[in-house]
Amino acid sequence: MTAWTISDIRRLDATDPLANRRALFSLPDDLIYLDGNSLGAQPLNVPSAVATITTEWREELIGGWRDFGWFDLPDTVANQISKIIGAETGEVVVCDTVTTNLFKALSAAIQLRPDRAVVLAEEAAFPTDVYVARSVANLFGKELRLVPIGADVADHLDESVGVALLSHVDFRTAQRLDLPSVTSQVHAVGSLALWDLSHSAGVMPVGLGDSGVDFAVGCTYKYLNGGPGAPAYVFASKEHLDSTLQPIHGWMGHSEPFLMTDEYEPAPGARRFVTGTQPIISMRVLGAALDAYDGVDLVAVREKSKSLTGLFIDLVDQQCAGLGVTLLSPRDSALRGSQVSLHHPEAVPIYERLVEAGVRGDYRTPDILRFGFAPLYVSHMDVWNAVARVRSVLAHWNS
Amino acid sequence: MTAWTISDIRRLDATDPLANRRALFSLPDDLIYLDGNSLGAQPLNVPSAVATITTEWREELIGGWRDFGWFDLPDTVANQISKIIGAETGEVVVCDTVTTNLFKALSAAIQLRPDRAVVLAEEAAFPTDVYVARSVANLFGKELRLVPIGADVADHLDESVGVALLSHVDFRTAQRLDLPSVTSQVHAVGSLALWDLSHSAGVMPVGLGDSGVDFAVGCTYKYLNGGPGAPAYVFASKEHLDSTLQPIHGWMGHSEPFLMTDEYEPAPGARRFVTGTQPIISMRVLGAALDAYDGVDLVAVREKSKSLTGLFIDLVDQQCAGLGVTLLSPRDSALRGSQVSLHHPEAVPIYERLVEAGVRGDYRTPDILRFGFAPLYVSHMDVWNAVARVRSVLAHWNS
Repeated sequence: MTAWTISDIRRLDATDPLANRRALFSLPDDLIYLDGNSLGAQPLNVPSAVATITTEWREELIGGWRDFGWFDLPDTVANQISKIIGAETGEVVVCDTVTTNLFKALSAAIQLRPDRAVVLAEEAAFPTDVYVARSVANLFGKELRLVPIGADVADHLDESVGVALLSHVDFRTAQRLDLPSVTSQVHAVGSLALWDLSHSAGVMPVGLGDSGVDFAVGCTYKYLNGGPGAPAYVFASKEHLDSTLQPIHGWMGHSEPFLMTDEYEPAPGARRFVTGTQPIISMRVLGAALDAYDGVDLVAVREKSKSLTGLFIDLVDQQCAGLGVTLLSPRDSALRGSQVSLHHPEAVPIYERLVEAGVRGDYRTPDILRFGFAPLYVSHMDVWNAVARVRSVLAHWNS
Repeated sequence: MTAWTISDIRRLDATDPLANRRALFSLPDDLIYLDGNSLGAQPLNVPSAVATITTEWREELIGGWRDFGWFDLPDTVANQISKIIGAETGEVVVCDTVTTNLFKALSAAIQLRPDRAVVLAEEAAFPTDVYVARSVANLFGKELRLVPIGADVADHLDESVGVALLSHVDFRTAQRLDLPSVTSQVHAVGSLALWDLSHSAGVMPVGLGDSGVDFAVGCTYKYLNGGPGAPAYVFASKEHLDSTLQPIHGWMGHSEPFLMTDEYEPAPGARRFVTGTQPIISMRVLGAALDAYDGVDLVAVREKSKSLTGLFIDLVDQQCAGLGVTLLSPRDSALRGSQVSLHHPEAVPIYERLVEAGVRGDYRTPDILRFGFAPLYVSHMDVWNAVARVRSVLAHWNS
């Protein structure tokens, strides 16, 4: 383990190729914000984006749908996300919530494997993923099989599985699955892979196309900084799109919405996943927020993410030994997302003391402290200072 | 028919109990806006609402969910809508799109009448309603029965019908169904009534509770002025709520979302209809917009609505006779919503000329001109001036 000094930290920040991105964000001066895995910080261009869309609505009224491209926002914002997750134009659309998109994508995938009896999901997944998997399995008369926490997905795959719903990065532990190899394992038994990218997109290359992923969904208010409850996205591989039919048929996913015909004819591409009219103000904010990723090399983002989380783990090891926290996240950076979770039996009051001390992570009841490291705006010096405050809070708690 | 003069018009506006509401809206000076049935005008308090939510996100970050009530917005904004549609606290929630809410409410209703083979919908309904009805019927193995355009709903009801999906006001013609009596007809054969209020809420009393309506959905960006694509709402009668389970199970509709348990336990009340995390910026704008309805008497709104639409019809009759337009909407104000539709074989270019002349209605291809009258911000003088411009455009078109 490196015995870090503050000059090492300064050197890491001085040579950080992403250091200039922090200036694109508004962050309170007195806060070290380590919760970008839950709600991303606000990009500087957001106030002008909300002012613009508000003016468009006020002045152009209904004409805004055409004149200002509101109608196309699910596709145009998707094009910004496609670059981040390695998809092609037309394979992604921005709409609705992660929950609703999971419902649609899982339903679509099940119908592509009608003879398979099992839907596979993970016990460790974010609760919504398990709820949707169980509900959709019931709806289509399938059996839900849950991979137990800590078990290997491959050990639960067989030729009865039609679809496997998998989390790229675990929300509690930041355990990261190897997306290409697990996708290959899923395909090897003839199943389809549906990935939830909520905790990975924006902090690492995802490469959906390169890995032959079938379907994916993700959230945009975490590392993608789209604002609270920003619309989610859904990906369907071009290999499946033409034969994909999701069940929530809405006019905004119709090939010719303004013909107002009674027959549903799905739009080409991922647009067919759109249900009804989308929240344009929130959409516009998301589009502006994604500009922070323009020209960003996601390999560099991943390297910085590993560097930040690795540094945090090292410093906690060195400075917080014997103070009651243990590491829940993988020590091997290859197996880790951009988050570090610590176990402490009194995580909730510790979290509250940390907020008072100017370090904002979050907690998951009853005993998990989570710290997220958004490489676009978190520096190594933030990590250094955060651990000093964590140490101080823990030392005081134990005294 | 009254032979209207401009002094009549001035008198109508001078005695309009809602005249003071117009000052709550921003409207371009040079425009007569008659498309509030498609996208409502912007309330004056919207810019400050977007500034507030933007500041909350920037300064409080993840803490906003608790500290600024973001988590509760689907319920608190619903309380504003409940008063407008005659529902009780806990029977309405704001979330998702009309399409997705229709999907959830129809699925829930079908499961309350498992032995009934038929879902009834209207051929004349907004396309999304027909698409969702067909898709959900297929999903649950039901038969879709469509009431033909112009036919009476009652003639298509029988004891095979489990749920009837009905539009309170027709989007093309503004034909208004008598909600209490049609609901009674539906109940008389043991069916459930699911109403789409998109074209009625905000321009007339709806009285869901008084009529014993089972389920309802509606849009908030038309007469409720929530902004482009503002989140929709869904109503479930307290009589059904405890036994209602919609199929899109998400963590934001869970009774204890932050326990993050793997078992879905629906929240009490209509909150169980929420899927995932909602677009908070658009939600906040909607909440602010609904303040325009504070203290408004919906009976007075309905009276003004009838007065505006009746005046428009009278003036078109008087001034546009022989100019190629015919009335599509009911002449009897009791059968009419807050919109007047005219037939013209060349509706689209006529619409474009009207926009150039400063009258913004809209059209539905191929041959329908629609004019919506939002009683909170449209005056009788607007109607007078609009018809003068309609007459001028039509006269020029025919010359």
